[in-house]
Amino acid sequence: MTHSSAAADLPEAFFTEANSVEVVNAKIGADASPRLAEVMACLVGHLHAFAREINLSHEEWETGIRFLTRTGQICTDERQEFILLSDTLGLSMLVDAINNRRPEGATENTVLGPFFVAGAPVRKAGDRISLDGKGEGCLFVGRVVDLDGKPIEGARIDVWSDNADGYYDIQQPDLQPKWNNRGTFFTGPDGRYRFIGIKPVSYPIPDDGPVGNMLQALGRHPYRPAHMHYMVHADGFQKLVTHTFVGGDPYLASDTVFGVKRTLVAPFERLMDGQTPWRSEYDFVLARSGENR
Amino acid sequence: MTHSSAAADLPEAFFTEANSVEVVNAKIGADASPRLAEVMACLVGHLHAFAREINLSHEEWETGIRFLTRTGQICTDERQEFILLSDTLGLSMLVDAINNRRPEGATENTVLGPFFVAGAPVRKAGDRISLDGKGEGCLFVGRVVDLDGKPIEGARIDVWSDNADGYYDIQQPDLQPKWNNRGTFFTGPDGRYRFIGIKPVSYPIPDDGPVGNMLQALGRHPYRPAHMHYMVHADGFQKLVTHTFVGGDPYLASDTVFGVKRTLVAPFERLMDGQTPWRSEYDFVLARSGENR
Repeated sequence: MTHSSAAADLPEAFFTEANSVEVVNAKIGADASPRLAEVMACLVGHLHAFAREINLSHEEWETGIRFLTRTGQICTDERQEFILLSDTLGLSMLVDAINNRRPEGATENTVLGPFFVAGAPVRKAGDRISLDGKGEGCLFVGRVVDLDGKPIEGARIDVWSDNADGYYDIQQPDLQPKWNNRGTFFTGPDGRYRFIGIKPVSYPIPDDGPVGNMLQALGRHPYRPAHMHYMVHADGFQKLVTHTFVGGDPYLASDTVFGVKRTLVAPFERLMDGQTPWRSEYDFVLARSGENR
Repeated sequence: MTHSSAAADLPEAFFTEANSVEVVNAKIGADASPRLAEVMACLVGHLHAFAREINLSHEEWETGIRFLTRTGQICTDERQEFILLSDTLGLSMLVDAINNRRPEGATENTVLGPFFVAGAPVRKAGDRISLDGKGEGCLFVGRVVDLDGKPIEGARIDVWSDNADGYYDIQQPDLQPKWNNRGTFFTGPDGRYRFIGIKPVSYPIPDDGPVGNMLQALGRHPYRPAHMHYMVHADGFQKLVTHTFVGGDPYLASDTVFGVKRTLVAPFERLMDGQTPWRSEYDFVLARSGENR
């Protein structure tokens, strides 16, 4: 062997299986942002621990590289496969939970999802948001209140759902009227909201790409239980991004993006009279800004 | 609140910040391959632990989604940015280490890198592989031996390096001769190899994409120390994929892909006579198949 003299003046800390995390993180420069340095050091630690714990083979590593590459390459302005990946691995819900630790009694957040569109038309209380004539009509009613139960006037409520075929309007721009099953409402002095939509239906997330392949390989279905999306803004209160879920939906216990919380399951009652066959009542309880667990 | 009756018959185990890993992994079906189930459960565990430990903000999560998307979208048949990411985070070297735990005394592996091309011309001992007339010539000599020091006859050695400008032939198909600085050699009965290349030069990995942005934000340079690539096959022995590094290179202690090992630093001696100004001698010690630590 002839290497010893050539390496004589080198540092001890070359990369090894045992010291890999320390060696990689030691390269972060003093001029890196402290938060970026902290995030990346933690990421490298877990990435290496994963490979080590699972004894990752070279072939498995290659499979991962190909999977991530395909996931990036299927993304378009209309499709975000990495968000789907984050959603289906529970990361999106975990980040949502970490960033929305509300006091007991406040309505819980859940994922925004990829189908929110800003700028939906402002409607009057009682207006219909379902414009395609499909589905079973449902009256949505309730109040926006603070943690003491006092009504919040002037709260802005954005609502959106799929249509009876399980698609949002932006997924079918040629088939659905613009702003179908979307609207913006404001609460009056009593904190009440009221609109007519449809009883939402469960639907699969887009499953014809890498994430769909992953779910299939894991023996998981791609369905989300039926839900109505809400985003509630009120001055002095934390923004609430949530859904109400249709009680009794067969996918409530197996939402493929893990968005269901017990407190977000709402009653949908069949009405025997009136114009709409269903009625769902749900009160949103907002926490004040800065009021966290 | 009106949700209690609607949720009355639901299971307890909805997703929470505390139980997120268990809830996600509980969804893996019984028909998933046991190894895939094990790998994904471990991945989800570390992914969630990372987000939790670092208190990942929604904005940081969005930054990550955008970064991964760009990384996938810059990939082409000629550019694999996810492998660069794996390399620069030390994952590639860790996977290499995990999968090549050789007995003490056997030559160590290092990363294959993205520039290997199968099918390089077979050359005779002593042939020149550098075809573009650039750079400082170097005579590479040594033996392929087993752990007892016995010569291995008929070992096949593939070699490749950058040219004097720091580019591999496949990076400059219009500027470099085909197979420039590449060749395939076979050892004789004495186990010896011998060829003339150039003294390789250090070079930056492609740094005009997301990985380059990441290195810059982390205060890291994109350089690899000068090295000659070797792949050695011999019947009955483990395949060896390695480099020899040019002793004295300024980037030896800071290879941006962490490929340097102390035992792979080779002497490059200046010759005062002969046709080539440099000479580098290195012996490759192969472990028999199945002979691992």
